Amino acid sequence: MSTQTVFTIGRQFGSGGRQVGKTLAQKLGIPFYDKELIAISARDSGLSEALFTNADEKATSSIFYSLVMGNYPMASGALGVTEMPLNDQLFLIQSKTIKRLASEGPCVIVGRCADYILRDVDQVLNIFIHADIASRSERAIRVYEVPENKAEDVCLKTDKQRANFYNYYSDRKWGMCRTYDLSLDSGKLGIDGCAEQIIAYEKLWLAHKGQVI
Amino acid sequence: MSTQTVFTIGRQFGSGGRQVGKTLAQKLGIPFYDKELIAISARDSGLSEALFTNADEKATSSIFYSLVMGNYPMASGALGVTEMPLNDQLFLIQSKTIKRLASEGPCVIVGRCADYILRDVDQVLNIFIHADIASRSERAIRVYEVPENKAEDVCLKTDKQRANFYNYYSDRKWGMCRTYDLSLDSGKLGIDGCAEQIIAYEKLWLAHKGQVI
Repeated sequence: MSTQTVFTIGRQFGSGGRQVGKTLAQKLGIPFYDKELIAISARDSGLSEALFTNADEKATSSIFYSLVMGNYPMASGALGVTEMPLNDQLFLIQSKTIKRLASEGPCVIVGRCADYILRDVDQVLNIFIHADIASRSERAIRVYEVPENKAEDVCLKTDKQRANFYNYYSDRKWGMCRTYDLSLDSGKLGIDGCAEQIIAYEKLWLAHKGQVI
Repeated sequence: MSTQTVFTIGRQFGSGGRQVGKTLAQKLGIPFYDKELIAISARDSGLSEALFTNADEKATSSIFYSLVMGNYPMASGALGVTEMPLNDQLFLIQSKTIKRLASEGPCVIVGRCADYILRDVDQVLNIFIHADIASRSERAIRVYEVPENKAEDVCLKTDKQRANFYNYYSDRKWGMCRTYDLSLDSGKLGIDGCAEQIIAYEKLWLAHKGQVI
């Protein structure tokens, strides 16, 4: 039976959440979107990829700070919205892209508040992948070639940035159990194990739909 | 194959976490401890059950507050420790009981910081069960006979108390994904679905043990 579900994946840096999403998409034979969202949003809007890359999963800095520093960026025209910080406009454009992709069929979307953006869509499963800091640092060194003495710091700081981005654009809390339908420790299960667990969850969920606890 | 794992279950009030634990224990044929811990701790220590019931999953109130209010309770003798708030002494006694039970073989333990207490034990799986507030309120009314107009409030306040208790006695955060190996939405899976998902997790975990992400 082919899936009709849109899977969104939040993840700690170095947890392999991206790879879990990719493996899941391959197993189910559905599209996978992570950094791909940048190119698609750029194409959808006619804006440059560099703009989206620069703003990727970063919250607008506080208005007060930006005003004081004299670097409060205003872009107009992209969505016909003026007087809105650039990152917020880019977020709106990317949200539209995410909604369009989700409406086209089942897929896996990594990060970028996709769970929140798709909160009114029916068949969405929201997943969070995390792992202990030792496993994440090890993976960051091995896969992303982060220098050994900086690996832990890079993991923690990237998570902080992702949390800021998520908490700024949603009314939920990044990394809290209640924000997701399922959260998994990839250090305990591995990449393939996580993908298998998500597939098992979807089956149990569809079987239970409409019933009370 | 029979399990050798100790399962600990944290849970939002009304999520059916207790029932998930009970179902899991039945499926695996292993002991289940929730309120049972009170009677066992009382028997282990020779103190009254009423003392443990009163302190159950409640943190010691702040020392400053207690001193100001003149109700800083000091009990001595129970563990040979003096000058320690009563709830803290009871927590230590219950911790000893939890460690003993876990050392005797696989089992399911609900709440009471068991995951933190057993942090140095090898084969432990820590699970958190949550659900949307509507499902939890509905369950609180149906199962615990909470008045309809108070159900949501009781859910939220009990969770606050559990979080305070957990955060006070551990160095982890209650309800955060990273605190647990697995967190599940019982509103999405149902009681039996959660138990099935935990059993599947254990299998994948044992198959992956010792490997990197």
